[in-house]
Amino acid sequence: MPHDPAPSLLYDTPPATPAAAPRPASGAAFDWIDTARAERHRAGLVRTLRPRPADSPLLDLASNDYLGLARHPEVAHGAAEAAHRWGAGATGSRLVTGSTELHAQLERALAEFCGFEAALVLSSGYAANLAAVTALTARGTLVVSDAGNHASLIDGCRLSRARTEVAPHADPEAVRAALTGHDGRALAVTDSVFSVDGDAAPLPALADACRSRGAALLVDDAHGLGVLGDGGSGALRAAGLAGDADVVTTVTLSKSLGSQGGAVLGPARVIEHLVNTARTFIFDTGLAPAAAGGALAALRLLQREPQRAARARQVARELHARLTAAGLAAVRPDAAVVSVRAPSPEAAVRWAADCRAAGLVAGCFRPPSVPDGISRLRLTARADLTDDQIAAAVDTIVATAPQV
Amino acid sequence: MPHDPAPSLLYDTPPATPAAAPRPASGAAFDWIDTARAERHRAGLVRTLRPRPADSPLLDLASNDYLGLARHPEVAHGAAEAAHRWGAGATGSRLVTGSTELHAQLERALAEFCGFEAALVLSSGYAANLAAVTALTARGTLVVSDAGNHASLIDGCRLSRARTEVAPHADPEAVRAALTGHDGRALAVTDSVFSVDGDAAPLPALADACRSRGAALLVDDAHGLGVLGDGGSGALRAAGLAGDADVVTTVTLSKSLGSQGGAVLGPARVIEHLVNTARTFIFDTGLAPAAAGGALAALRLLQREPQRAARARQVARELHARLTAAGLAAVRPDAAVVSVRAPSPEAAVRWAADCRAAGLVAGCFRPPSVPDGISRLRLTARADLTDDQIAAAVDTIVATAPQV
Repeated sequence: MPHDPAPSLLYDTPPATPAAAPRPASGAAFDWIDTARAERHRAGLVRTLRPRPADSPLLDLASNDYLGLARHPEVAHGAAEAAHRWGAGATGSRLVTGSTELHAQLERALAEFCGFEAALVLSSGYAANLAAVTALTARGTLVVSDAGNHASLIDGCRLSRARTEVAPHADPEAVRAALTGHDGRALAVTDSVFSVDGDAAPLPALADACRSRGAALLVDDAHGLGVLGDGGSGALRAAGLAGDADVVTTVTLSKSLGSQGGAVLGPARVIEHLVNTARTFIFDTGLAPAAAGGALAALRLLQREPQRAARARQVARELHARLTAAGLAAVRPDAAVVSVRAPSPEAAVRWAADCRAAGLVAGCFRPPSVPDGISRLRLTARADLTDDQIAAAVDTIVATAPQV
Repeated sequence: MPHDPAPSLLYDTPPATPAAAPRPASGAAFDWIDTARAERHRAGLVRTLRPRPADSPLLDLASNDYLGLARHPEVAHGAAEAAHRWGAGATGSRLVTGSTELHAQLERALAEFCGFEAALVLSSGYAANLAAVTALTARGTLVVSDAGNHASLIDGCRLSRARTEVAPHADPEAVRAALTGHDGRALAVTDSVFSVDGDAAPLPALADACRSRGAALLVDDAHGLGVLGDGGSGALRAAGLAGDADVVTTVTLSKSLGSQGGAVLGPARVIEHLVNTARTFIFDTGLAPAAAGGALAALRLLQREPQRAARARQVARELHARLTAAGLAAVRPDAAVVSVRAPSPEAAVRWAADCRAAGLVAGCFRPPSVPDGISRLRLTARADLTDDQIAAAVDTIVATAPQV
């Protein structure tokens, strides 16, 4: 039986707890985990955490700190000041005690910077995507979702009551065809920049497909904010779609803005609807003041130094050009992610390990985290990489490349 | 078509974006929102954000800051120091660059404090619950979920591939019956302390029911950590179940620990399984260092001042006793939440507004946030409330109570 509608209950006194101790625990309930673990080991797909020190000597081309702001003194100071002034936590959900004037200030600043009427800040980009997809759909809604979308959008589709059609990657005509003939509400959902390969969605054509069928468009701009658009104002501004009445976007505060959290941006009535209905907004503690303060400081800094966005794109083009010239299968970047194909998951893991041994941290994407099953190194073109660092990174990646 | 298995795709070059501008936006795609808004207004169920200043003169009995630690100088300092030392953000997902030694330190401290073998920190308690339910179930698993469970557990059930049976509230025999006859993996899921009424789950009897049927038990201890158990070490320690081989618990860092984030605690193999399979862990940016540092500082403080936990429970009993003596329908508290029934949603809203006008912030829970449809004031028995503040709060609540 599903969880809603919830049965009506009355419980005036807490139930009595029996005094008898429960029977002893048996680990058998989790024995299936050992089987799953053995399978992962056999497939060479074991993931382990590798905690890093505060000051690593390694060159980072793996993080999503596109503008190099996470450790910028102004951004760290913004976070620290907010903790001192507002406390370490928001103390409650946003509708109870978890909305501070700092949250409201950040929401106004984000909306203005990205060119939308209103914004709503959540505790993560994941939560923002779950909120947007579930609150903007209902039973009977058709969602058309790009095959390369991020896990959080996919989970949003799964959580929603809507029917989801997966459209081939970056294919506006397929979206148009999927929307054709549907009677009722519809929503197309896409990343602006796809995390794995760094390629951009064809947003104007997607918007056109949606409009021809009366559908709304939801764009996750996690990898576009801070990198695309004038001064990093995002993929929707770059596409001329920011602020449009049928367009909603989500952003993260944890990539270009170097902090934590996410936000939904759109028409004011959409944001008001989310405040009233989005479960991952209503039933979650508000974003910590330090995260809001850090993101706000990063946004101010980016507004003062808009060239950071163009520099990130330039570094990406530079990396791509040099890696391609060296004969590697790098994907032409549309933003600040450069993806380089590896012949197998094992080769990708070894490649990343060899890079690390040579002082370079590169992302290693492999199944099941890649929609197409192709393993690759994933490089982040940080705006604050120096020319020497770029040269050293390319040298290392080429020198350690698997022989095909 | 569902999102997995994902179709295999190859896309070497980003798709061309057509030069033509898309047709103009039409707001019609979101016109249905106006209808939904009108319905909310008619039903008197409109929610609006009310950003608060840093230093409010109002007495807070609405937050989940049970131990009064969110603004404690040591906790704020722990958050600020972490931002300075580690940066405003974790810079990536935990498996890429988002695991710092600070995260590892917090995980060890949480596991030790609560008496579990291992812990995994996520960006919110919501994300922790989604991770635990989805990673510990599969198609064919039976989940038995308490009817009063938090939205995040319910969404975990919906996201999972398992079949969910909703059991009557706090009813171990119903859980046993639901588990009976199921062939395969099974998991019972419950809050330890239910947020709405503050009543506790019968954990020993639930564990017994699970063990009699070979099922595992997952307990969300969001409202128990810091309040129940020796020195606030949680409901599982209080029930003698901490560290058991078939028990997993989730906690939040945003309530008693005054910060942000969540964690899953359990046997090491369970935690390793989550690292490898839990989507809301793998595909989310790591918790911000400031949130980890704040939570760690709060944990250290609680270990030094364990009496804070007992004080929160004492304040709750005091509030309950005085409100009941005044003739109000308060629910006997098992932890630090005191719930007082209101005759209607409108009366609850008016009551909370009258309290606020008199200087007291009380939570107001009403449909659709209450599983049983009953509206109430929800009061938080913070450990740092003085006797004078308790007396003033009771006076205000009684003076403004609706006439029944």
